Amino acid sequence: MSSNAETTRNKKIPVVAIAGATGAVGVELMACLEQRKFPLAELRLLASARSVGKKMKFRGNDVSVQELTDKSLEGVDIALFSAGGAQSKRFAPAAVKAGAVVVDNSSAFRMDPNTPLVVPEINSGELANHHGIIANPNCVAIVAATPLWPIHQKRRIKRIVMATYQAASGAGAAAMEELSESTRAYLEGRPFQPKVLPHPYAFNVFSHNTRVDPETGYNEEETKVMQECRKIFGVPDLRVSATCVRVPVLRAHCISLNIELEAPLSPAEAREVLSRAPGVRVVDDMEKNYFPMPVDASGKDDVLVGRIRTDVSDPTGCSLSLFVAGDQLRKGAALNAVQIAERLIR
Amino acid sequence: MSSNAETTRNKKIPVVAIAGATGAVGVELMACLEQRKFPLAELRLLASARSVGKKMKFRGNDVSVQELTDKSLEGVDIALFSAGGAQSKRFAPAAVKAGAVVVDNSSAFRMDPNTPLVVPEINSGELANHHGIIANPNCVAIVAATPLWPIHQKRRIKRIVMATYQAASGAGAAAMEELSESTRAYLEGRPFQPKVLPHPYAFNVFSHNTRVDPETGYNEEETKVMQECRKIFGVPDLRVSATCVRVPVLRAHCISLNIELEAPLSPAEAREVLSRAPGVRVVDDMEKNYFPMPVDASGKDDVLVGRIRTDVSDPTGCSLSLFVAGDQLRKGAALNAVQIAERLIR
Repeated sequence: MSSNAETTRNKKIPVVAIAGATGAVGVELMACLEQRKFPLAELRLLASARSVGKKMKFRGNDVSVQELTDKSLEGVDIALFSAGGAQSKRFAPAAVKAGAVVVDNSSAFRMDPNTPLVVPEINSGELANHHGIIANPNCVAIVAATPLWPIHQKRRIKRIVMATYQAASGAGAAAMEELSESTRAYLEGRPFQPKVLPHPYAFNVFSHNTRVDPETGYNEEETKVMQECRKIFGVPDLRVSATCVRVPVLRAHCISLNIELEAPLSPAEAREVLSRAPGVRVVDDMEKNYFPMPVDASGKDDVLVGRIRTDVSDPTGCSLSLFVAGDQLRKGAALNAVQIAERLIR
Repeated sequence: MSSNAETTRNKKIPVVAIAGATGAVGVELMACLEQRKFPLAELRLLASARSVGKKMKFRGNDVSVQELTDKSLEGVDIALFSAGGAQSKRFAPAAVKAGAVVVDNSSAFRMDPNTPLVVPEINSGELANHHGIIANPNCVAIVAATPLWPIHQKRRIKRIVMATYQAASGAGAAAMEELSESTRAYLEGRPFQPKVLPHPYAFNVFSHNTRVDPETGYNEEETKVMQECRKIFGVPDLRVSATCVRVPVLRAHCISLNIELEAPLSPAEAREVLSRAPGVRVVDDMEKNYFPMPVDASGKDDVLVGRIRTDVSDPTGCSLSLFVAGDQLRKGAALNAVQIAERLIR
């Protein structure tokens, strides 16, 4: 918000815009604003020209989608962007110029030193330092960082090794549709040609479909996760390695986490710390063999965490293993952005 | 084989029995014997009483299933057991007494110090030390150990951290059917009550359905994998930690592997070592984003290995990350057992 808007903000209920309103995250942003009773004077739904005129329900009313243009951002106080990196680069500065604060779900500004990268449970203090744009982190970074942060507060984390089980939703609504359709085709014995993702998705697992850096061997998703965890934690030399993999799940990510701490922390202590942490729910029933699962995380706000145990392969006893599940569209994207917006208007 | 059978073995073509012939691994054992032109005088198909009389095709002929009894094992030279731990404990000693060598796919004898635990590409020398029973390792242990062994020969592996993506087939043919049926129900909007596995399987991921040790927090599958890797490698103090997870895939397991070596090994060197290793195929095309996948591993003999890169979270440069995929029913079970049998008759 410009200083001008800043002065008026507390006097008026904000005008909120969603850029990319028709996408999977856009729809979830509307659901989060509605469910959380976000105070707003007007909700403006913005998208590309081909969605103009489409009607979407919000609080029982039809809202017509408008084209995302510089003009459509005039008068907006909070702009929630989820229209892809190119649209964010093009229109987020215009929104800021028009007096809005942008919460951007794309990767466009995440590693910009002038842009806070915020998970509210971790570093909402960074919000004070924004210059108009606040970046919403990568979904895996959010789902991993939310339960790791309270542990990090108790015993400093020195190293994180993670392997992900990522849902289709991270690649958008079309990828979710492709997973369903290709699975249906498989079960009916029909051929299916993938269009959205580069590999067959029905009953298959594949390495994340982002460019692989030939120098490091890490793909872009992994590099984002590693860099963003460091920035969110405010620990530039935090040692992180990620292996990002897609699994045939619709909308919740799981992550297997192995962490090395500066000193031992017993599983019971970790469980205790996590049970008091915001945004996290401990699901760790060894007797019933009940642990975090995508079916339980889907549509929920909390990141589920379980399988908490001392990693027996570290003779110092300073390592823990955990398994987490979090809704990619909610905490991994829309919910986190709305939580940021809530703090902006407090 | 008793010493008596031993002397006659080279003079005659062996009588082979499959105990548990009607299960998913049993069917695959028949396929491997047929495809590999395993020399045999007779194939005896043994199973529980309820399968007696069932006819199965082998080399174009119908073979009738007989009941697995002490008597049914008389005259058998090589008995391939895949009827579960209880049946192995009950009947494998009887088979040995009757003069057979048993290759046992269950976990019943794997950690018995008198029983070799063999992956032929790794420790076929152990076959000389058998006392009638040879154990076929756990599927994850085989799929992980086969590509790790050639690396271990080049640079000693000090630590293995793995997260698995395990297919339905490890829980048998009924679990594969449950995955298909529950997915079909999900897509058609019908309710489905899991019967074989404890959790919903359609578009879901869950921690492996074996008992969790309340002391260590590791489940039985993980404990098996960790113990068996040590025994197969002949390194009792090898540090291993496994997180075993089921994903909605039908018959090939994937594993994300992070390994710490005694000294650095470049990804190029690792690729070179693996490209010459038996039982392994390097699938590591960074430009095309083409890496090991269950759809490519299914029905294939080789364990696919890729995503070979230096783990950036280890500042010593001594750690590598890899991602592997192997057919759970073939190299993870039936093929490995038949490869053992092939070495026995050489």
